[in-house]
Amino acid sequence: MTGSEDPRVIRTKRDVAKAALEILFAEGWGGLTHGEVAKRADYSRATIYSHWPTQMDLARDAFAAYEEMPHFAPTGDIKADLLGEVKSFVEAMASYQLDRGLAMLAEKAQTSAAVSEIRDRFVSAGESPMRETLEAADNPEFREAATLMLCGMVTHSMLMHGRAPDSSVMSQAVEVVFASIKVER
Amino acid sequence: MTGSEDPRVIRTKRDVAKAALEILFAEGWGGLTHGEVAKRADYSRATIYSHWPTQMDLARDAFAAYEEMPHFAPTGDIKADLLGEVKSFVEAMASYQLDRGLAMLAEKAQTSAAVSEIRDRFVSAGESPMRETLEAADNPEFREAATLMLCGMVTHSMLMHGRAPDSSVMSQAVEVVFASIKVER
Repeated sequence: MTGSEDPRVIRTKRDVAKAALEILFAEGWGGLTHGEVAKRADYSRATIYSHWPTQMDLARDAFAAYEEMPHFAPTGDIKADLLGEVKSFVEAMASYQLDRGLAMLAEKAQTSAAVSEIRDRFVSAGESPMRETLEAADNPEFREAATLMLCGMVTHSMLMHGRAPDSSVMSQAVEVVFASIKVER
Repeated sequence: MTGSEDPRVIRTKRDVAKAALEILFAEGWGGLTHGEVAKRADYSRATIYSHWPTQMDLARDAFAAYEEMPHFAPTGDIKADLLGEVKSFVEAMASYQLDRGLAMLAEKAQTSAAVSEIRDRFVSAGESPMRETLEAADNPEFREAATLMLCGMVTHSMLMHGRAPDSSVMSQAVEVVFASIKVER
């Protein structure tokens, strides 16, 4: 449905993506069927099948719509922006069940190439504000390490400990990364 | 079976834990049944049921045995030890399918309190060498941030990008953390 501007099509796409994501989170991958999406979004099965022929088409649009989560608005102050992005990542875990989405993508990507593509696209979009802020540092290996450490602090804490890092720990992590930023002028 | 020293019991426990883990990784949580474990480990269903009454008993022993992965042997040089532990964590992803185990635990822990307990215990055992090395630093918030960032770099990279961080990126991350270690003397 890409490229279409028809408002009915846009609404259908939004309704279906929302229903598909709700079903995925509640029932897991096995629950995501055309029949369930049709029922929950209140469209005919024929409509669903015609625009989303496979389960992966449904999952792809569910996660594409989910990408629209708000991000921190950068201020230009590198340290403040890094902390803002870390906190907005944690916030999305609570407000948008991002921990559920990431765990489901991570697990299923290990056995499905289609889900692996959905995950890669989703993660890349999620990391991009952090990567943009870190463009200020001149060493690409440092930028990669800093991105993986700051995003990883949040995903590891949420997925492996089942909770967000303490606020003081997040500040400390940003201090550690910021102290090593070397800016070329 | 805890506390028993009977070698037959020890062997049974090891065989069953190994079979349960193989089934979990191959078939997912739904595949882990007493019948499947009995078949693969070549014991009677009655034996399996009598020692592991529930599916969670099987999963608990599977992950407890899985904890016995080799860790890096610390040298006392903090920087070398941090890098050694990061690399041994990455190595375990490849050699012991640790990425599969962590993704399955993370995903299922979100809807099962029993799996959440298994995950917490498993993650705590896995992080402990890193936490011991970081005991050298005097600030507890720094230690927590450093643990989450270094472990998180690996889990985020493996689970969200589907690959290990480059070796140069791991070294850079350890440099960043090490540069901020303040040791009280």
